[in-house]
Amino acid sequence: MSQYFSSKETRSSSDREQSLCSRLAPFIEYAKKECDYYAQTLSDIDASKINSRQMLATLPVTRKSDLIKLQAQHAPLAGLDAGSANISRLFQSPGPINEPESTADDWWRLGSAFYAAGFRAGDKVQNCLSYHLTPGGFILDSGARACGCVVIAAGPGQSEQQLDVIESLRPEGYCGTPSFLKILLDKAAANNRDVSSITKALVTGEAYMPALREQFKQAGILALQAYATADVGLIAYESDPHDGLIIAEDVIVEIVRPGTNQLVPAGEVGEVVVTSFNSDYPLIRFATGDLSAVLEGRSQCGRTNMRIKGWMGRADQTTKIKGMFVHPEQVEKVRLQHGAINKVRLVVSQNQLQDQMLLLCEVDSAALAKEGTADSAEQLSALIAISLKNITKLNGKVQLVAADSLQDDGKVIDDIREFA
Amino acid sequence: MSQYFSSKETRSSSDREQSLCSRLAPFIEYAKKECDYYAQTLSDIDASKINSRQMLATLPVTRKSDLIKLQAQHAPLAGLDAGSANISRLFQSPGPINEPESTADDWWRLGSAFYAAGFRAGDKVQNCLSYHLTPGGFILDSGARACGCVVIAAGPGQSEQQLDVIESLRPEGYCGTPSFLKILLDKAAANNRDVSSITKALVTGEAYMPALREQFKQAGILALQAYATADVGLIAYESDPHDGLIIAEDVIVEIVRPGTNQLVPAGEVGEVVVTSFNSDYPLIRFATGDLSAVLEGRSQCGRTNMRIKGWMGRADQTTKIKGMFVHPEQVEKVRLQHGAINKVRLVVSQNQLQDQMLLLCEVDSAALAKEGTADSAEQLSALIAISLKNITKLNGKVQLVAADSLQDDGKVIDDIREFA
Repeated sequence: MSQYFSSKETRSSSDREQSLCSRLAPFIEYAKKECDYYAQTLSDIDASKINSRQMLATLPVTRKSDLIKLQAQHAPLAGLDAGSANISRLFQSPGPINEPESTADDWWRLGSAFYAAGFRAGDKVQNCLSYHLTPGGFILDSGARACGCVVIAAGPGQSEQQLDVIESLRPEGYCGTPSFLKILLDKAAANNRDVSSITKALVTGEAYMPALREQFKQAGILALQAYATADVGLIAYESDPHDGLIIAEDVIVEIVRPGTNQLVPAGEVGEVVVTSFNSDYPLIRFATGDLSAVLEGRSQCGRTNMRIKGWMGRADQTTKIKGMFVHPEQVEKVRLQHGAINKVRLVVSQNQLQDQMLLLCEVDSAALAKEGTADSAEQLSALIAISLKNITKLNGKVQLVAADSLQDDGKVIDDIREFA
Repeated sequence: MSQYFSSKETRSSSDREQSLCSRLAPFIEYAKKECDYYAQTLSDIDASKINSRQMLATLPVTRKSDLIKLQAQHAPLAGLDAGSANISRLFQSPGPINEPESTADDWWRLGSAFYAAGFRAGDKVQNCLSYHLTPGGFILDSGARACGCVVIAAGPGQSEQQLDVIESLRPEGYCGTPSFLKILLDKAAANNRDVSSITKALVTGEAYMPALREQFKQAGILALQAYATADVGLIAYESDPHDGLIIAEDVIVEIVRPGTNQLVPAGEVGEVVVTSFNSDYPLIRFATGDLSAVLEGRSQCGRTNMRIKGWMGRADQTTKIKGMFVHPEQVEKVRLQHGAINKVRLVVSQNQLQDQMLLLCEVDSAALAKEGTADSAEQLSALIAISLKNITKLNGKVQLVAADSLQDDGKVIDDIREFA
């Protein structure tokens, strides 16, 4: 039996890159023709010219958080679905954000993640993500079935009954959140229940802490991680030995500065942006709202695709200051109005119950030098403060800081107020 | 668009009967070859001779309640599944009883029930049966999709959020229990929420009371009933105008005296026994544990299959008397030992916290007359009481009653103790 779900996983990077890039132009052409949304947003784009990552990066990003408003205006899918789409199910995740599903085989492409975690034909898998209203349960279900596994559709909760099921059906595998697997293991230990049939797990849906990975290992379970979203399906997955998340085949992943269309330099933390090639629900530069960073080199497992670090938080840092929403997009607007600023971070704090904004601006010292002396630094700060006021309708302080002094953690708005 | 899901629904009764009966011999042959269970239970049966309902009625019944023990001995499916079965999911309903599913199109055959209830391609359907551990959600899901509907996989509960979903996605249809539809309608009315998009419903899973049907009608919803089980899938369904439940195509339904292999006379209440022609999970004379009765004549809707009344209670009347289980099968054994008894009913009551058994025996007066006078009636009673003691290990009284005096409600054990 092959070690890989698909031979695509071990092709050379250049073959993969060429294959992915050659699919861009026809896919964008298709999306403009089939989807009302892209007909509008990409109306000025000559699809035939989009044949590289560089060209892809010129296209506008569609943010997950924008779907709320877009879908409310144009239900249920804001016209991102293809006219010829084969949609079998609709979900509504909190937001609300609607998501479509087709029941075509392995539509969410989770098969390769299950396979890399050791799942094989005939394995029974207890699936503990919910199938209700959100698509998580179905996403894992279809991936496990793509490996020929038999799914025990369990959902979350009812942990007593789930232990009964594990004892009587003796599943080889678990899939769901890491925290629910911990609940099952702890409960089994406390009540002397036998869950030893489970030796593999695919976990997802929340941060996967090293301590938990260690607990699962102690329990004889190899638990690897899949990174998937309800819109895109699989984005990246771990293999054994786990050394970062390998990008899924058939998607292009970019990392952009939160709130912007712009790529971050290689290795920097930013927002995960995905271009899928899903003909039912085309996503072109879809910003997931999740933070991660590209990891250099390749996995030891033989899979050749780019890797990213795990989930590093949420990119959507929209917050409310003195009762007004402030979006990362607004902070980015301030940055763009001043060529000398490389990077910004809006620190939101409280002093005597009053909200305060401080905009830290990493300034290109060469650019500043060109403008002159300390005076010009002070002048620049003042100008930036005016931009900040104009754009956010709020007063804030500005502080210029040296290049590379802001932490590389993807944060554009750093809310340090304590709300306890 | 056709008024019927399949042209089979309107074929002549003789065509249908011929078609179903011609499938029996090869199907039983297949089941004996493919399924460990039938290889044993039907080992003495010459499959080629089973070519009529009369011959089918000679085969042993497999009771749903027996699956608990059989599956525990031979997990997960007691060898009722075919060796070549294509099983994608496993469920565990309370009992526990395990049920398999294949994801092949309309595997549970609910499509015709949705179609008869007015569901058509493109309709959005809010599916409020659970997808977790029990297969109800999937059973309805696959049937709605077979009609080309888009399923909103909602599950039960979260009624606030479900109203949000209904208002924003505006589904045309509902499927689930009648009681949960009532909950949604009542909550919508109380909170001035708009659920007017729903105009059709397929309800199942519990008794469907006339008052509820009327409430749905007042709310502008045509809500028709499907009768399905987690083992068999669709057994029967209503059409518009509702006048009984029409037996599904591709299954043979028999009505037997509870606890026995024997058919009841036409029109009498008994246990629903189904022979499916499912090659993954063959069910041959599978006793559902549900009570119903054949309804004479045909539906006005043009469908020509036999009809049954709705669900009339549970046939499995096993109870515990003075700490001992008493099964309907035991009561039937008593009946069989005395040719003069037509029908029996064991009434279980309590007097001063002591359990008491009274066996009512409907006696063929002609047969009794042959045996003689009042003396012989008394003698018969005494003999029956001895049988009752031998078979149940419990003392009980016997009372002979006139022919046709026992209610025709399928009850073999009538437990009138109050346990409050």
